[in-house]
Amino acid sequence: MAYYIESLQNLAEQFAKLPGVGRKSAMRMAYAALNMTDEAAKSFVDAIEDAREKIHYCPICQNLTDREICPICSDLSRDTSVICVVEDPKDVMSIEKVREYRGTYHVLHGVISPVKGVTPDKIRLRELIERVGAGDEVREIIVATNPTVEGEATAMYIAKLVRPLGIKVTRLAYGMPVGGNLEYADEVTLFRAIEGRRDFQ
Amino acid sequence: MAYYIESLQNLAEQFAKLPGVGRKSAMRMAYAALNMTDEAAKSFVDAIEDAREKIHYCPICQNLTDREICPICSDLSRDTSVICVVEDPKDVMSIEKVREYRGTYHVLHGVISPVKGVTPDKIRLRELIERVGAGDEVREIIVATNPTVEGEATAMYIAKLVRPLGIKVTRLAYGMPVGGNLEYADEVTLFRAIEGRRDFQ
Repeated sequence: MAYYIESLQNLAEQFAKLPGVGRKSAMRMAYAALNMTDEAAKSFVDAIEDAREKIHYCPICQNLTDREICPICSDLSRDTSVICVVEDPKDVMSIEKVREYRGTYHVLHGVISPVKGVTPDKIRLRELIERVGAGDEVREIIVATNPTVEGEATAMYIAKLVRPLGIKVTRLAYGMPVGGNLEYADEVTLFRAIEGRRDFQ
Repeated sequence: MAYYIESLQNLAEQFAKLPGVGRKSAMRMAYAALNMTDEAAKSFVDAIEDAREKIHYCPICQNLTDREICPICSDLSRDTSVICVVEDPKDVMSIEKVREYRGTYHVLHGVISPVKGVTPDKIRLRELIERVGAGDEVREIIVATNPTVEGEATAMYIAKLVRPLGIKVTRLAYGMPVGGNLEYADEVTLFRAIEGRRDFQ
């Protein structure tokens, strides 16, 4: 192209590596970064460095935290006999928003996916098994991985590992989303909703 | 919220300032920034700082460039008697891609918008007038601002300033986009397409 600015192109490529950012949005972001005041640009760069420096995995549940032990694991009112296993830190936030669950969590940071080369040792599974086997009286593991093929496979893998230890393994309920419309539900969801039907109270 | 990490929240807020980035995408980007390798994070931050340091406005056409004078203004084969006035550097790229236009450009970095407090002195209009009045034999100014109310107003403002100097002022043609469908064209576009109809060759 006649008009090519290497450092601008490079910046756009960096933005394009972020999730959900296409080539055009990346270029728009690069322009925005150029148009920032010096102060705004410094805040932006500082925020990246600051977050990366302060945030690490909680040694117990593997969730992100800026403290030594995360607030949930250090909250004595939480029930440590129940562990909810999720794929991502985002999922912890989602469940916490419901304000219903009072157990603890375990963040896998991924799901098993042979196709993508994610073997069980690539996610934080070992840490879960160690936790369960460490003599904490864990009664139940709620596997809350996503209802995808990989999420299911990971759930089954965990069940196989943990059930022999005499621990109950449960899975989130499948069914119609609340406020959903039968007309728009896919067959698999509808099948699961029928299969999992409950007595009308 | 029970689970709040200040530096993560702050990073997400910084991403949310970028164009087209909502609250959820911003959080996804913040997680991505945390998951980067140290090397990738350094490349990202370096790209921002590098681009901001190297890129500035071309003193002639006001387009972004990393050279003293931009490649188009320093290209002796370009026709300096025609100036195409655009809102943004992105627009220069768009027109250059057509490989048809051989004149020069002038980038306004915005449009006049009294509602948004953008008065004529807030965009690079003075520089255009100086350029035109500097004795360069400018024959024609093609005003290629966007076909919006503000783009139109800016075009009219430029025409009023420049026509008295004996310079021809033109505007890009309005009409049906090529490959477009009459059924989906809005009334204003269709009206302009009829109004600007041309002899069939």
